Parts: sequence; C-alpha cells; structure tokens
Amino acid sequence: MIEPLALSLGDPAGVGPELIADAWTQREAEGLAPFLVAGGNNVIAAAASARGIDAPVVAIKSPEEAAEAFTWGIPVLAGPDGEYRPGKPDQEGAALALASLELATRLAVEGDASALVTGPIAKARLAEIGFAHPGQTEFVAEACGYSPLDCVMMLAGPSLRTVPVTIHISLAEVPRQLTSATIERRGRITAMGLMRDFGIASPRLAVAALNPHAGEEGRMGDEEARIILPAIEALRAEGIDVTGPHPADALFAARNRETFDVALCMYHDQALIPLKTLDFDRGVNVTLGLPIVRTSPDHGTAFGIAGKRMADPGAMIAAIRMAGLCAARRT
Amino acid sequence: MIEPLALSLGDPAGVGPELIADAWTQREAEGLAPFLVAGGNNVIAAAASARGIDAPVVAIKSPEEAAEAFTWGIPVLAGPDGEYRPGKPDQEGAALALASLELATRLAVEGDASALVTGPIAKARLAEIGFAHPGQTEFVAEACGYSPLDCVMMLAGPSLRTVPVTIHISLAEVPRQLTSATIERRGRITAMGLMRDFGIASPRLAVAALNPHAGEEGRMGDEEARIILPAIEALRAEGIDVTGPHPADALFAARNRETFDVALCMYHDQALIPLKTLDFDRGVNVTLGLPIVRTSPDHGTAFGIAGKRMADPGAMIAAIRMAGLCAARRT
Repeated sequence: MIEPLALSLGDPAGVGPELIADAWTQREAEGLAPFLVAGGNNVIAAAASARGIDAPVVAIKSPEEAAEAFTWGIPVLAGPDGEYRPGKPDQEGAALALASLELATRLAVEGDASALVTGPIAKARLAEIGFAHPGQTEFVAEACGYSPLDCVMMLAGPSLRTVPVTIHISLAEVPRQLTSATIERRGRITAMGLMRDFGIASPRLAVAALNPHAGEEGRMGDEEARIILPAIEALRAEGIDVTGPHPADALFAARNRETFDVALCMYHDQALIPLKTLDFDRGVNVTLGLPIVRTSPDHGTAFGIAGKRMADPGAMIAAIRMAGLCAARRT
Repeated sequence: MIEPLALSLGDPAGVGPELIADAWTQREAEGLAPFLVAGGNNVIAAAASARGIDAPVVAIKSPEEAAEAFTWGIPVLAGPDGEYRPGKPDQEGAALALASLELATRLAVEGDASALVTGPIAKARLAEIGFAHPGQTEFVAEACGYSPLDCVMMLAGPSLRTVPVTIHISLAEVPRQLTSATIERRGRITAMGLMRDFGIASPRLAVAALNPHAGEEGRMGDEEARIILPAIEALRAEGIDVTGPHPADALFAARNRETFDVALCMYHDQALIPLKTLDFDRGVNVTLGLPIVRTSPDHGTAFGIAGKRMADPGAMIAAIRMAGLCAARRT
C-alpha cells in the first residue's frame, strides 16, 4: 500500500482550504494520488461550501483510512481545527496553519504519508505567533534534521524549472553573497533531486549569468569568471551535465528551454520572472534534497480573493500531482 | 509623398543583409512601408542569393526613387559597399557597417527618410575601428544633437513593452547607479514616446521593484521606498498614469500585462528576460525621445548562422513595420 499524501491547510483565511477542496473534485481528471488534510475539518467543509463545491469531508482517525475515504470525500485527519473566516487573517488562524503544518510534516517524516504538500501561509502572521523560520521550507528542513543549506527550492511549471541560488535577499546583497560554493552545492543537490524525484537519468543544468550579456568578457562585471565558472567546472568534474554561464535574457526563450532540464539562477527574480511569466497559476515549489518529498503551490494566501470563488486551483493541483509522482519514484 | 524608411546594413558578415532581403519579399503580406538600404548593393545582392531569395536589387541615386523601386526590387542607395563574407567579420566589414549607419542616420536626420532602422552590428568590431559609442543608440542620439540621457531604449514585442532604466552595467552597479532622477526622466520620455509614436493617448506605466517581493516593506532592500516610490510620485504629479513598485516576478504574467502599456524595469535583464522569454525573434528595440524615429531588431549579428538560411526574419520585419507605423503617426 502506498501511503497518502499529507496536505497542510495553509492559512485558513487564505485560498488554501478552498483550493484543496477544489483539487479533490478534480482528482480523477487530474490523476491525483490519494491525499489527506492534516486537521481543519470544519475549515475545509466551510471552504468547500463557500466555493460551491460538492465535496463531503470524511473525518478519519488514521492515515491508513485515507485511501478508501478519498474515493468519496476529502479525508481530513483528526487534528487542530478552527473557524473559516476567508480574507480575515488573525493569530488564531495562524496558529491553526502552524499546527496543521506540524502535523502534516510529522506524518511525512515518520513515513505515515508518502509526501508533504504545504498550503500557502502568511509569514508575517506566523512570525507574530513566534514562528522563527524564514519560511515553510526551512521549517520542513529542520523537521527532517537538515540544514536549509542541504536542500534546494526548485520552481517547476509546465514550461520550465528554475532554482534560485540566492533567495530572499536584496538585489544589492546578491553579488556580495554569491559564492562558488553555494552554486556548487545547489547544483549538486538539484542534479541529484532531478534524478531521484523526477526520473531524469542525466539532468542537464544550465547556469545563468549574473550580469547582462554574461558580463561581456568582464566589461560588465567579473562574477562570471570569478565565481560562476569555477562552480560550473567543479560540477562538471563530478560528471554533472552543466552549461553556462548563459546570458540570462535569452536563456528562457522557447528554443533555449529545450536544451536544459533546469536553470540555476543567481537571484530570486531571475528564477521567478521567467517562471511566472510563462506558468503563472501552474507553478510548483518543490524542495529537493530532503528525505521527504515536499511540494507547495507557488502562490501566496491571496487573502483578497479568498472565499470568493476566484482563486485558480491550477498550482495546487499541480503541486499535489507532482508530490504523488515524486513519491511514487521513491518507493 | 511619405519619405522611405532608411535601413542600415548592419555588419555585412552578420545576418542583417539577408534579413533585409527576406523582409522585402514579405513586404506585402506584412504591410511594410517602402524602404531603402543605405549602401551595400553588392552585399545585399549576394546575401539574397545566398538565402535563395528572388529579390532583385535596384540601385537608386536618390531617396525619392525608393518608393517606386520598392515595388519590384530592394532599393539600395548609392553609397559604401564591399564583399559579402557571411560569418567572417573583419575590420573592412565593420567600416562598411559604420558607413552605412552614418548614411542612413543622415537621411533620417535631414528628413530624406521618414525613419531609421539599424541592422545588427558587432560593438567589439566597431570599437576596433575607432567607434567610440557604447552602441548605435548613443551614436544616433548624438547625430540628432541629443544626449543619450534624453532618449530611452524600449523593447517592444507582440506581448509586452519594457524599458530598462539602467542598461549596460554590472548587476552590482545597479543599486549604486539607480536614482529617482533617472527613473523620472526615463518614465517621462517613455510616456511621451508612447503618445507620440504609438498613438496611446494616456499610457499606463508599471514600475518594477528592484528587490524580491518589492523589498517586503524594507526587509529585503529599501530602494523601493527610498528611490523608486519618490520617482513614481513625481511622475504622477505630472499627470502620468504610473503604478508600482510592483514585485517584478509576477508583473509579466498574462493577466498583469493587460494592466499596463509599458513596464519600467530597474536593470537590463529585468527588462530583457520577460521580453525574450515571450517574444524571442519578434522583439524590436525602439529609441524614444529623439527627433527621428529609430527602430532595430532586438538581436545581434548572429555570425554563426549568417548565410545559412537559418536566421529568423521576424524581428527585422517587426522593426521595419514598427518604424513605418511610428513614422506615419509623426506626419
């Protein structure tokens, strides 16, 4: 028997709960693996109702009940719960989001779930109740006994996969914090993750340049020669298929996208601009390098449209489907 | 009578000449205004032949002859000429490219041509023969008696228009060189250019943030509050329709692109990544703010594929068409 995927609610005032319910209604058409929701029975039922969806909630007491329950309703594991107040985030909701995340993560870490799919949370709200991690990825890494440096955030859409080497820092910090060691480390974890979780036998990595025109032989910055190229050479010496540094502007054109499986990008927007330009509403955030499979829809809580039947379920469905596929490859 | 467009050859070893010839064969289907080529009779004839195109060259002695000649051949104005050696750039070719650029620019500046379309050149080659400008845009600005600061480089494709506020500098220099005054100046010229040359009565400008998530209220950089926002407010005070600073990653998603006519971007790749991701092979570089209309295909000389019938004429055709449309709006 394959264990179900474990989904965390996300912030109950955001679009997470309604998108989970919506995804369940499309489970057959989208080929989704059975999942359970970690707590939030009342929230899921109310969110489904607000969305106008015919999706009964099935209270389950153990993950083993999920697979069967999944055929006729949304399996919600006994756990934390609360009110459904879409568009009205508060500390009570943040506490529920965190409790659901903790429960879902534990299921995955202990092997009672085959993968973890995290719903969107509001970092600022979680910080108010004492959540000390920059984001869910760091929380999950720690729960696995890993350092955030040991895992990689990969954005994956139907058109493109990208990995930001530096992430949540100001643009001015990027040239200061970019090191060969970080590029190497991220590249290595990415290559191994694509092999293990995506079934790509020999992943092709394309490394983006930092500067315009890849620095034009040093006339516009020397990071390509000084920092990026040594990392590429080190990865190649390990047998990894890596090219670059490529001028970033042309790297994501259709014909160039065919030449690599993932682009290693030097900063947040370099990775996120092409992804969201091409695959908005279908982007998945995958954590590579951890002992568990973890995905997340690449969007926020969208408090402004929660409960209004407006949120697009594409990314949530893609995150659930990808978690199922990756988990199947690990068994 | 409307004057013809004046096209410069570009580097004769690059793809410019063959793309000009190819564009001429598609003049009716693409609705191109009559154009002439500034010199290069032998080069154009040989490039057309190499491309396997049935496009006779018509030697003309004056721009007035162009419109009639255009109906049955490629009008080439008497001027500099040389050998056609595709894929083999040399100083002789660079000198021809420069002479053709000078001739075409003069025609436009003196009103004998309605607009200037510049073919792709190799900056490094031109520098070798003493060309002191960073690029053609700066050359053209000076020929008009303008400072490069008085004009704006806009990239325009079928899906998107973007303007880089800072251009050919390293990424590390961007936060150091970005000023409110530059953003203001570029924003003002852009708004006026879209009115004058693109017939947009009240252009909607979207200003991209510099930092990820637009800095998240200062947690990842303060340039949004310190530099970008004051510029937006100053432009608004002048009655220009400006929004931002917007997180750059989501700005170019399809639904967001509908909300603006042009995106003001803080650095080269922020402007070029979405443009080339969406509109590779169809991007046009337009110079706004000058007394003459000037466009250029947004690609380089592509020496590696010159003369091999591989180069896509889409951007050259788009540049010629756009020049014609902008010129018609100025008459």
